[in-house]
This record gives sequence, C-alpha cells and structure tokens, in this order.
Amino acid sequence: MATGTRLRVVILGGGFGGLAAAQNLTSPRIDVTLIDKTNHHLFQPLLYQVATAALSPGDIAQPIRAILRGRDNVRVVMDTITSLDPEHNCIHGELGTYAYDYLILAPGSRHAYFGHPEWEAVAPGLKTVDDALHIRTSLLQTFELADEAVGTPALEGLLNFVVVGGGPTGVEMAGAIAEISLRTMLPDFPRIPRSQIRVLLVEAADRLLGGFDPKLSEHAKQSLTDLGVEVHLQTRVTDITATHITLSGESTRKIPTNNVIWAAGNAASPLLTQLNTALDRQGRVIVDPTCRIAPYPNVFVVGDGAHMDDGTGRPLPAVAQPAMQMGRYVGKELVRLANGDRAFTRPFTYKDLGSMATIGRARAVVEISNIKLGGFLAWVAWAGLHILKLISFRNRLKVLVEWLWYYVSFQPGARLLYDHEQRTLKTSPTTEVHEQS
Amino acid sequence: MATGTRLRVVILGGGFGGLAAAQNLTSPRIDVTLIDKTNHHLFQPLLYQVATAALSPGDIAQPIRAILRGRDNVRVVMDTITSLDPEHNCIHGELGTYAYDYLILAPGSRHAYFGHPEWEAVAPGLKTVDDALHIRTSLLQTFELADEAVGTPALEGLLNFVVVGGGPTGVEMAGAIAEISLRTMLPDFPRIPRSQIRVLLVEAADRLLGGFDPKLSEHAKQSLTDLGVEVHLQTRVTDITATHITLSGESTRKIPTNNVIWAAGNAASPLLTQLNTALDRQGRVIVDPTCRIAPYPNVFVVGDGAHMDDGTGRPLPAVAQPAMQMGRYVGKELVRLANGDRAFTRPFTYKDLGSMATIGRARAVVEISNIKLGGFLAWVAWAGLHILKLISFRNRLKVLVEWLWYYVSFQPGARLLYDHEQRTLKTSPTTEVHEQS
Repeated sequence: MATGTRLRVVILGGGFGGLAAAQNLTSPRIDVTLIDKTNHHLFQPLLYQVATAALSPGDIAQPIRAILRGRDNVRVVMDTITSLDPEHNCIHGELGTYAYDYLILAPGSRHAYFGHPEWEAVAPGLKTVDDALHIRTSLLQTFELADEAVGTPALEGLLNFVVVGGGPTGVEMAGAIAEISLRTMLPDFPRIPRSQIRVLLVEAADRLLGGFDPKLSEHAKQSLTDLGVEVHLQTRVTDITATHITLSGESTRKIPTNNVIWAAGNAASPLLTQLNTALDRQGRVIVDPTCRIAPYPNVFVVGDGAHMDDGTGRPLPAVAQPAMQMGRYVGKELVRLANGDRAFTRPFTYKDLGSMATIGRARAVVEISNIKLGGFLAWVAWAGLHILKLISFRNRLKVLVEWLWYYVSFQPGARLLYDHEQRTLKTSPTTEVHEQS
Repeated sequence: MATGTRLRVVILGGGFGGLAAAQNLTSPRIDVTLIDKTNHHLFQPLLYQVATAALSPGDIAQPIRAILRGRDNVRVVMDTITSLDPEHNCIHGELGTYAYDYLILAPGSRHAYFGHPEWEAVAPGLKTVDDALHIRTSLLQTFELADEAVGTPALEGLLNFVVVGGGPTGVEMAGAIAEISLRTMLPDFPRIPRSQIRVLLVEAADRLLGGFDPKLSEHAKQSLTDLGVEVHLQTRVTDITATHITLSGESTRKIPTNNVIWAAGNAASPLLTQLNTALDRQGRVIVDPTCRIAPYPNVFVVGDGAHMDDGTGRPLPAVAQPAMQMGRYVGKELVRLANGDRAFTRPFTYKDLGSMATIGRARAVVEISNIKLGGFLAWVAWAGLHILKLISFRNRLKVLVEWLWYYVSFQPGARLLYDHEQRTLKTSPTTEVHEQS
C-alpha cells in the first residue's frame, strides 16, 4: 500500500467484535464505516437481567455513536445489510451501498433450533433488547394471568417455566427466573400457591456448564437446586408447542407451559453464506489464523461468525472475549498496514481470561486458568468484573445501585408491562383496548 | 352501615388518585379491589424525561402490587374495564365483572385534539410509557435518518421538532428536546449542520404556563429561547399531516416536520359517559364537594376525570396534586363510614402545594403561594421535590444518579432504539429485516 493512500475499512456489526475493531482502527490514514441495524452496542452478558426485570435496557446498552464520539475517522451508520458482494468490494444495505478496501464482518449469531425453526416462535432466545423485553413481558404477564386463574383449572401448569440449554446463559436465566418468581413475584401474588411455580432447566449433556471444570458444574447444579430450580440432565427436547414442551430422558414427559426460553446452540448470520467459502455446521466461516478467508484476502470475519481454531482443533467459544480479541487484532494489524509496516505476519492468538456464570442473586461460578471458585466469593468477582466491563462510568454506577438495591430488597427495578408489549390476554373475549388510566 | 358488615370498594385506575385512595383505605372492614390495565403506577410528571431519553421507564414506574404489598385487604387486578353498570353496582372488564358497595373512578385522561381526532396518529401525546417510548424512538430515529440525508434535499425540515401546547408538559418537552438535540445528539452527528435543527413551541394564548404568575411565564419563555427553542405565542394549529404542520398566527405558515408532539388539552375517559350525569366540555364528571355524583351516591370520581370546583367557579387542574388529595379524601371518609362514624359531612378542600415546571437541564420555574422562583435555584427545588415524591427509595437514588450524571456529562442514559419500535425507514426500499448483529 503506497504511503498517502487512505484505506476504506467497513465494519459490519457493532457488537463486541466490530466495536473492538473500530476502537483500534485509530490511524488517520484509515476511514472507518461501522454499520449496525440498531443504534446501540449491547452488553449481552447481562441481557438475561433485562429479561428477568432486574435491569432496564438503558443500563446495559449504549449508543454506538456515543462510544465512538470524537473519533473523527469513524462514521457510524444505522442500516440493515442485505447482501455481500465481495467480488466488487462492497456490501449492500437498505439505505445504501458501502464500498471498502477491507471488510470486517462481525455479524454475531442467532439461536439454532436444531432443525425445528417452528420452535422459535414459542421458545424465544435471548440475543437482543427486543428478545429480552419479550421474555420479560411474558414472565410478568403470566403472573397476572395466573392470579386471575386461581381456583380454576386454567392455573394448572401456567406457572411452569422451562429453560432449554445448560450453558452459562441457560444457568443464569434459570437462576434468575427462580429468584424473581419465588422471592419477588410470589409475595405480590398472595393468592397463588407456592407449589404452582416450577422452574425447569433442561440439558442434553450429563452436566451443566460443559466448558467449565466438572466441580463447578456440580456446584452450579447444587446452587440452582437450592434456589428451587429442577435441573434435568441427559434430557432432550422432542417437541415444543404454544402450550406444552415434550422432554425425553429416562422417560418421556409432556409438560404444560407457555414460557419456554431457548438457550441452546448458535447459528451464525445467513449473510456469511455469500462468501463462497467453507462454513462449519453452525454456519460459521472457517477463518485462517489472521481471521481471513481464502477467496478474499481483504475480508475478515470476527466474533460469533468466525470458526477460529483454538489450537486443539476446536473452535473458540461464541462469547465476548474471543470476539473482542479478534476485533482488536484485525484493527491493530490494519493500522500497521496503513502505516506501511509489515502486517498480518503474526497469527491471532487467543488469551483465555476465564469463564464465569452467576446463579441467582449472590452466587456464581468462576474459572480463571487454575482458579476455580464457587459461591458468594465467586459472585463478588463476577459482579466486580461485569461492572468494570460495562462501557461507561455512568452505567457502572447505575448498575451498582440497581444490584445493591436488589441485593438488600429483592425488588428488581424494571417489572413493567407496557401497552405495546402486551400479548392479547388468552382469556380475553375481545382485543379492544379501552382508555382507562 | 351495620357494624360487622364488610364494605367492598372497587377502584378503577392506579394513577395518583386511585393509588392514594387505596393507600388510605386501611380499615380491616373494607375489601379493596384496585383495577388497572397496566401493572404499574406511573410517575407521570417525569414522563417527558423518558420521551427525551434521560430516564428509563423503570426509573419512573413501579408495579402497583409492589407499592401495595403487605396490604392484606387490597387485591390488585390487571384488567381493562369496558363498561360501567352503576344501576347494578358493578363494572365489567375483559377478564371479569367486579361488584362493589362503593366505586371510586380514577380513570385519568387522554389528550384532546379539539375536533381533529385524525391528528392523534401524527401528533402523539404523552400519557403512558408507550407514548413516551414512541416519541423517544421517533426522536432518535430522525437523527439517524437525517445523517443519511445529509447533502440531499431530504434533509430539509427533517430535524424540525414542533411541540403544541405551552403548559408545563409542553414547556418541559420543548426544553428537553432542544437540549438533547443540540447538546447530546449533535456532537454524535458531526455531518449534520447545527442550523438544520429547529425546536418550535406553539401556544394559542399570549403567554406560556397560563396557570403561573406572568413573571414566571416570561422567565420560562426567556429560558427556552436561551436553550434554542423558538417560542410562538398567539399561534394556532390549523392542520397536521405526516409531513407538515400548518400554523396560523400573525401569518399562516406551513412547516415541514414529522415530529409533532401534542401537549394541549385533556379529554376525560369515555367510560364516564356511562354515568348518566352532567359532563363538562372536556368530558369530566361534575362532582359534588364530596367527589360524588347525584344519581349514584356510592360512586366517586377523582383525579383528571372529575370536574371539582376550586371555589372560584373554575375546575381544579388535571395534575397530580388534586388527584392525590381527592383520592386520599375519599379513602379516609370511607374508612370512617366502615368504622360506623359520621362520614362525608365535611366537603373536600384542596390545598394548593404550588406549581413547578422545569426547563432543560438546570432551570425551572416554581410558584408556591407567594413564592415565585426562576432559574437554577428553582431547578434545585424542582429536582428535590420530584425525587422526594418518587415512590420508593430505590427510584429516588437511581434517578438522582441519572440526573447527576446527565448534569455533568450531557449524556442521557436511555438513547436506545429497539428493533420492535423501529418504524420502517422512510427511504428504505424493502422492509425485510436481515440478521446482522
């Protein structure tokens, strides 16, 4: 690249990977365009707390423009990309076409329903603010419906909550649902019998948190059981409808529920199929050690959409740390390139900063290389790290206030049903909405 | 009422009036049913801060059940009431029928469009969380659209914001919109010229804040002008469409805008027409000095839906204080009745606690009997009083953190566009949504 030429770098996605790339593309010789279909970066590891009404969306999300404010070489665009055209070095969105010298794809992932796309409508996953608000609405509304159904057969099974998938998201969701149901909601609904509330966590493998040390898996299971969660291991989901879930383990059971939350499996963005390169079973692009693909050496894939070998033949997990590290790597190497230095001569290396999952209000499991923690101490480590990682000082302070309050009071801060999120009440004879308050 | 009989009191509405009634109906001889179509009580005086992204809905709303937790004689029901049947002492909702000995109607109000109901779709009011999120989405989305439109004719008029109505809500909205547009958003959109952003406040009378002292009206006008708001007095709205507003004052002007916010006039709930009693022009029930109506001495109306003479022949204003005081009065008198004491022998008397309105980040006008304050000191009084009035300690602390942060940083905390709120982009050739982040 001749000195004096400006590089046009287009980044698709403002999640952990895309944002890290933009933050590291600091050379004045590079023009960066970051495109996302929303206006905000989301701190996804805490999304389950929005779904369980502990936090508001504003607590864990921040406008991308605000994060990148003052970066004169970065343009932020809110657009939905509809196709890639790597032959002509551009991508197409609903609002325009974006030409690039280098493209960084960080499109994230959605949930995979293992050949049952029809389950998505009745078993929502948890990837976006919208997903979280949908689950929150369903959770809160179910208690209102149950209160009306007390003393009638309609109550039977109404308060069964089923979380599918025993990874960190599933464990965190199940713990949080048990806690909000039994500790927060139940006292506000004195007519509802305690015995009517069941929270089930379903996992196909023989332990929870497959990526963690087995001792921590056992610890997590015990903590969830203490909170009132029924943990079902070696159990598969064979069917989900609007009214039931069918589980197949030691025996086959059909459990009434209209609150199934899906936390099992990822599927990469379908946009990646347009790259004429090999994908793995989850639709991830198999990238080389510089995050590139063979047919187009100016296209990088980072984050959940990249299948990057961890050195043992397995892909890096689809979580925040690999995404951020890949994004940072590509950003830094492109700056070297723009400066006329040798670039992409060193492969990307992943530094494992450990894993953690929280269980309810004040328990967690933490694994950082050889350190394995469970219980309250682990929760303190978890809370501290997550607060530190939240983007701005303001959010840190606010989330801290929220958590301290929740910790002492069991009163989470966002138990709201808005009009426009309300599903039509199932028992409602009419959908007419009358002005009333 | 014979001793030993339990009174059934049904309250319609969980706003300031209905909640105050429930909180004062503390007799064990009274069974209270409070019905609202949402699950939360809303601190409406701060709703404009949700609309302008300074606060999250969870900061200013609280589940009604949580507020009334521990009150064994109160049942909270989430239902939409569809008709009143005062002849048979019951009201009907979508989920059930509620029989009462005494009925307290506190249904609140919506905005009045002065014979132009078609304006509601293009000029939303601000009464519910849903309203506020709708306005917030439109405001944020407009800046994203404008960024795309820079350099094209589509930019012309896109960033015109028009607030109709110069009462407290209109003044607060206009100030907040000017501040978020010019101080918060503009730095994040460096391509947008400052001159393209216009905030207009339109009022038919010859001064703002008609209920305040004229000096404070002038003070508010000056403060808004300093913030960049164009204040148009003695100006009427003659037409609103999706793309324009037509104003008629000294001259007639047609101003391009798709962001009109309606803060002029109230219309009481249409349910009140079912009471066979006199209504005023705004649809309010003309109540006697005990908040009752002639045909049905066991039916009370409190809050925005009641036309209660203030002693000078004018009705009390449709704001929080009269609603709370009426609700408290009716609650306390019914407790007397249930206890076998003489009740409703003293008329309701309104105690004016003063009025206040805030203008932007750190200015306000306050009028408490003979005290008339403007400027920063008034803002401190306003902020302190509103924080004190928020329902719980938690919200007080959180809102204080939000405001302190906003005060020092100009970075409000809730500038989020969720997927499900996004309007289809006007320039979008397709509505297909592609997975991307």
